[in-house]
Amino acid sequence: MDKDLINTFSAEVNGESINKLRPIENESSEQAEVEAAEKVINAMRYYRQYCLMKLKRRSDAIRSLLEEDKALLVASCTEHMKRVRECVEQNQKLLEMIVHCGANILGGSVQSALEAHQLHPSTEHYMTKSKSILKQLVRDWSANGAHERESCYRLVLNDMATLYPYRSNDNQQNRHDIQVLVTGAGLARLAWELRKMGFSVTGNELFSYFMLLTSNFILNACHEKEEFTIYPYVMDFSNSWCYEDQLKPIKFPDVNPADFNDGDKNSSERENINNMATGFAMCAGDFLQAYSDAEEHFDSVVSVFFLDTAANPIAYIRLIYKILRKGGFWLNFGPLTYHHEDSDDTLSLELPFNSILRLVEQCGFKLEKVLDKESQKESPSRYTWNKDSMLQYNYYCGYFVAQK
Amino acid sequence: MDKDLINTFSAEVNGESINKLRPIENESSEQAEVEAAEKVINAMRYYRQYCLMKLKRRSDAIRSLLEEDKALLVASCTEHMKRVRECVEQNQKLLEMIVHCGANILGGSVQSALEAHQLHPSTEHYMTKSKSILKQLVRDWSANGAHERESCYRLVLNDMATLYPYRSNDNQQNRHDIQVLVTGAGLARLAWELRKMGFSVTGNELFSYFMLLTSNFILNACHEKEEFTIYPYVMDFSNSWCYEDQLKPIKFPDVNPADFNDGDKNSSERENINNMATGFAMCAGDFLQAYSDAEEHFDSVVSVFFLDTAANPIAYIRLIYKILRKGGFWLNFGPLTYHHEDSDDTLSLELPFNSILRLVEQCGFKLEKVLDKESQKESPSRYTWNKDSMLQYNYYCGYFVAQK
Repeated sequence: MDKDLINTFSAEVNGESINKLRPIENESSEQAEVEAAEKVINAMRYYRQYCLMKLKRRSDAIRSLLEEDKALLVASCTEHMKRVRECVEQNQKLLEMIVHCGANILGGSVQSALEAHQLHPSTEHYMTKSKSILKQLVRDWSANGAHERESCYRLVLNDMATLYPYRSNDNQQNRHDIQVLVTGAGLARLAWELRKMGFSVTGNELFSYFMLLTSNFILNACHEKEEFTIYPYVMDFSNSWCYEDQLKPIKFPDVNPADFNDGDKNSSERENINNMATGFAMCAGDFLQAYSDAEEHFDSVVSVFFLDTAANPIAYIRLIYKILRKGGFWLNFGPLTYHHEDSDDTLSLELPFNSILRLVEQCGFKLEKVLDKESQKESPSRYTWNKDSMLQYNYYCGYFVAQK
Repeated sequence: MDKDLINTFSAEVNGESINKLRPIENESSEQAEVEAAEKVINAMRYYRQYCLMKLKRRSDAIRSLLEEDKALLVASCTEHMKRVRECVEQNQKLLEMIVHCGANILGGSVQSALEAHQLHPSTEHYMTKSKSILKQLVRDWSANGAHERESCYRLVLNDMATLYPYRSNDNQQNRHDIQVLVTGAGLARLAWELRKMGFSVTGNELFSYFMLLTSNFILNACHEKEEFTIYPYVMDFSNSWCYEDQLKPIKFPDVNPADFNDGDKNSSERENINNMATGFAMCAGDFLQAYSDAEEHFDSVVSVFFLDTAANPIAYIRLIYKILRKGGFWLNFGPLTYHHEDSDDTLSLELPFNSILRLVEQCGFKLEKVLDKESQKESPSRYTWNKDSMLQYNYYCGYFVAQK
């Protein structure tokens, strides 16, 4: 896909660019942004060395065994470690491609960060995110993620289709005029699905350059189905039934991100891509900061697994109310695993689902639809689910549609 | 129940007492044991202050809100915080009772630790364990834990019943002669269920004085059904549907631990309790150390959610083989969430389930029954499950019965 066709990572809100991770107020903020990019790039490039260090501890564990125990294990473990190392090398290649693609397209902070970059050890926190990006790719852009996406995105996609019915005689124009904001857009699949349905979509994501670089790679460097292969579970040694589970290859993307006709190559495809280009943007930055001036800008806000990223959910609710046009809809789906609950340096306000509902009404919304505990009992959602693991997390999500 | 009737926290293996947390080799080891007891006692008594500190941060978060936001929340939050504090006070009373019961009955290190004790701040690690003990009580000794126990213990209890059929004409004597070791016995419910079935049971548990003091309290200080009430979820602010879920009271025990006739008070009850006393013991200590000399001592070893506590599972497999009599059975059920996987100071060997099976055979066992991925797909197990939480962990457990 022509990289110029998708206007990724910039968006105009009230004529002002919001393509920034945080408000750039002065030179030292710019420097801080380069440093933030550098830390992420370093973590993605340090992946191989980090994994090899972890693998060495496992080899040491085998070497430290009694001779009779070692004899039982050494052949199968040595072979397995060799295959693990091969998968790690493949993952590193992919992470390098993601970084380079970012340098070519995003420019700015990423380019400066890459120029300044010398590979150095990264923290456990950053390395967890590097590993996590591989699982996010499964969630949003692989056939293996289809079940998980169904459990997380289906309800909002169906309700968006109902709220804004497609009228065939106006060539999707009615949906193209609907401005949708996807908050916590992650690797952009939900935003992409909404764009595919005809809406004009902006995806906002805070998760710094990890998500930013990776969604950029998906949207601008992936040209065909199942072009790339990763091994997202290769460093998960616990809860495996067999070594093969740990080495499971995942191909992505499950679709060509440029292909909005499901492979039906007709004459209108180019037009569709152009529509896509004009109606699709990813914006990086803290939601509260990036949209603080965007009054009555959106027809719809869609948030999935997002509300619990707030230290203060009321601030999110109020801002979503403000940026919606009168009559606009907010669709919200997710658990309430408050990200700042155990934070030492952020004061966090953790509210239960029914308190959130009350606040939504108090802030001016009218609740149009609510699915709570009883409705969600039989249909758990997942987040970066590995169906072959002995340990699986089930999320029973609250859902509501609220109108301004 | 008369506390003298249950011979808790001591067991004779080859005539040698193994009532110890680690081998007592010299005076400094004894001192280390007193210090270990003191840390746990401190954490259990520090619970209230720890919770109040956490609650203060939440009150600060509310106070820091804009006036208009505060107005929406302050009434309901203030009322909720008041109720949370009341539940915390109740939990603290129970934890105090557990500590005091230990001092009265266990003596030794606990008594010395209590004498030396001055309440002081505890680490997050220890406080997590203090909170966890309350959830363990739900798992093992409340009606609310029945579903979880069914999912974790049923399979082994059924297979034990089949392996050692009850012959009514010999007054359960045949089972009383069967010596069963339950490793990772936790709060002793599984061991208790096996004793109730007629077996002679020893429960072994490493999880130091947290488990030791609490199972002692259950077995020696609980005299009737639902005698005590705790609030195990009171400090879980995330993933709640409503405040009531967080404040849910749990009564325990669901049975009178002394009552082996399910309330059928007939003349043989006293005899049963005496049988219980002579055939039931809890032993604290590292499995590998406590049983290193116990050759061919047990007819059966039952391990549930235990194997993954090993840094080296082969050492467990070999020791279980050694302590079983010829023809004896090992029943093992659980996931493989290796406890030492991310440890910096322990070399850990994480093996998948099928490698474990191979090792079990290589170490001399004959596999009699195996339930693997496909068999467990539809029946997840839980560990300290809160069915009202938006986030639930499902364990898909491997199971096998192996014969020496």
